[in-house]
Amino acid sequence: MSFTLANLPYGIFRHENDHPRAGVALHDRVVDLTSLELPGDFAHPTLNPFMAQGPQIWKATRARLKELLANGPAGTHYALGEVEMLLPFQVGDYVDFYSSREHATNVGTMFRGADNALNPNWLHIPIGYHGRASSIVVSGHPVKRPSGQLKPGEEPPTFGACKNLDFELEMAFVVGQATAVGEVVPIEKAEEHIFGVVILNDWSARDIQKWEYVPLGPFLGKSFATSISPWVVPLEALEPFRVAGPGQDPRPLPYLQQTRPGNFDVQLEVMLNETVICRSNMRYLYWSMAQQLAHLSSNGSALRVGDLCASGTISGPSKEERGSLLELSWGGKEPLRLNDGSERKFLLDGDTLTMRAWAGEGEARVDFGQVTGTISAA
Amino acid sequence: MSFTLANLPYGIFRHENDHPRAGVALHDRVVDLTSLELPGDFAHPTLNPFMAQGPQIWKATRARLKELLANGPAGTHYALGEVEMLLPFQVGDYVDFYSSREHATNVGTMFRGADNALNPNWLHIPIGYHGRASSIVVSGHPVKRPSGQLKPGEEPPTFGACKNLDFELEMAFVVGQATAVGEVVPIEKAEEHIFGVVILNDWSARDIQKWEYVPLGPFLGKSFATSISPWVVPLEALEPFRVAGPGQDPRPLPYLQQTRPGNFDVQLEVMLNETVICRSNMRYLYWSMAQQLAHLSSNGSALRVGDLCASGTISGPSKEERGSLLELSWGGKEPLRLNDGSERKFLLDGDTLTMRAWAGEGEARVDFGQVTGTISAA
Repeated sequence: MSFTLANLPYGIFRHENDHPRAGVALHDRVVDLTSLELPGDFAHPTLNPFMAQGPQIWKATRARLKELLANGPAGTHYALGEVEMLLPFQVGDYVDFYSSREHATNVGTMFRGADNALNPNWLHIPIGYHGRASSIVVSGHPVKRPSGQLKPGEEPPTFGACKNLDFELEMAFVVGQATAVGEVVPIEKAEEHIFGVVILNDWSARDIQKWEYVPLGPFLGKSFATSISPWVVPLEALEPFRVAGPGQDPRPLPYLQQTRPGNFDVQLEVMLNETVICRSNMRYLYWSMAQQLAHLSSNGSALRVGDLCASGTISGPSKEERGSLLELSWGGKEPLRLNDGSERKFLLDGDTLTMRAWAGEGEARVDFGQVTGTISAA
Repeated sequence: MSFTLANLPYGIFRHENDHPRAGVALHDRVVDLTSLELPGDFAHPTLNPFMAQGPQIWKATRARLKELLANGPAGTHYALGEVEMLLPFQVGDYVDFYSSREHATNVGTMFRGADNALNPNWLHIPIGYHGRASSIVVSGHPVKRPSGQLKPGEEPPTFGACKNLDFELEMAFVVGQATAVGEVVPIEKAEEHIFGVVILNDWSARDIQKWEYVPLGPFLGKSFATSISPWVVPLEALEPFRVAGPGQDPRPLPYLQQTRPGNFDVQLEVMLNETVICRSNMRYLYWSMAQQLAHLSSNGSALRVGDLCASGTISGPSKEERGSLLELSWGGKEPLRLNDGSERKFLLDGDTLTMRAWAGEGEARVDFGQVTGTISAA
């Protein structure tokens, strides 16, 4: 893994027994941000105070870092392998959107048939729901197989270990600028509230979810763990990769109409143990991050620094671009064959699932690093 | 309003321009807890640090307060009318359950007919979902009518001010003892994690909710505002009012089986402007607070100090015990007549909605005070 000067993602690290502190990644090093003189406030064990300073300070800090680090790591710095990466920010509210048309269509086809795959509201609303902020963990945190109520057939439900444990390939943005209750963010200002982006694995217990989710949505099928990558890539670093998203028909309501392209060309890859099982791209998202945030704020719902908004599973048009095992194995009907010859419908204890994301090449490359997790027994 | 020595609820108040601080209510006074020597830690503008000290300190602090305040307010104290009450704790995750059988049956009957009123999972699972923590406000905070996508008929959706603004009468408990990701709380220990109880108004935009909620649950129809009463009544104060809840058939799965009564006889009342429109009781809840917490924790989901868990609308068996306008006006078909001769299907701008809750009488009375809010225009 190597981070370019074009990237400069922020994280929170711990070196040996020192206090956790903020760092920026460059090449294979983490630079201690408390060792440099910067406009941003990094004297804390989370990025929240820096994010709360707002877009002008983000921009000024990034510009100054580009000067200070132009010739390589400066100030105090450590090899990435020497430090432990921690959760980069304190999460406020966590929202999980459902913004990939291909994913919603695949799941809808399996559950309701091809003719009723998309719900009537899906093409009008960036559908989302609130998830559990307390269960967000950083890459590397073990993921314990959850137990819950299961009801696979006509028999009464039983309580036991989840049998259909899945991942969901997602990207997520973190809010860096707050709003008060009752304040509405217009779409043209939505991106000003976005500090940066991480990779997110929305671990899913499909059997628990299936029995519980009507009518109030997913709850314990999701809330046992959600993993994020430790490096927050500033939205500014993604500017060279801005692209138009899929065409939107019907045309969204005015509060969701974008005046410029709102998607980003970020390549995604999922590995199950040693096998690449999915390649996708963030550009496939039907609803952009700006649309998601404008929708979230449209009723006057307060935004807080540290709010995390995930995209929903990012599936693409082809079969190998499906971003969950539910889709890849088509509900367990078409098991996946891994490089070691074994088969998977869903995740087994001991399985390691790793997601990677990056944009561009060479000196222009912006790498998100990875989010990984290993399943431990219930 | 008068608070007895049997009650001693905690809150955060501000007197004139002083810093916010913790107080306890007695008679018509608020006693500044920083002016007394106590086992609990009150040197903060939220109750979270005190709650985090755990049940033994809660118990010791309450016992000491009963001694110190046996002859009336002591230390520094102010008239309740002299102080401003603030949000009593920093909210972690906010969960809204759906635990009243009468409410679920009423709503289900309106939406799906009497034969399919309860979903198949309802009698097995304390159904719930995550709401938005950032939008929780204290009693008195104005509630702005939200805007959102509306689709009342066959025409495409439009964006505009909510027309079907409603309240939901709920009680909520706040978690005072945390758990780590992966840790499960057995039901017999569930109440040890509950610090206290407040009244909660789950303001609901029925038209926004109706169009958005399939398949991932309520989102913007709820997240614009949720109001709570400012005084947190310790669970210990409710002990004399412990009663058995409704019989549960089918018998819950073992992880939800209680070894002692888990409900509380707390009277509830809702006023719309000057008219009492609902009287209900917390004892009607089918799923108890202990069952809700045990369910929430059953998948290893982390609990944090300040997590807020609401009951869902508490409706009773009779018509005047229905805890929302949706039920009271039966979906708008049977408008309510108020004392001033006006009618209501849903809330109008300028309407003030007030909920009260109390248990017992005289010196044994435990009063929750009230949660009130006035609707302002979109």
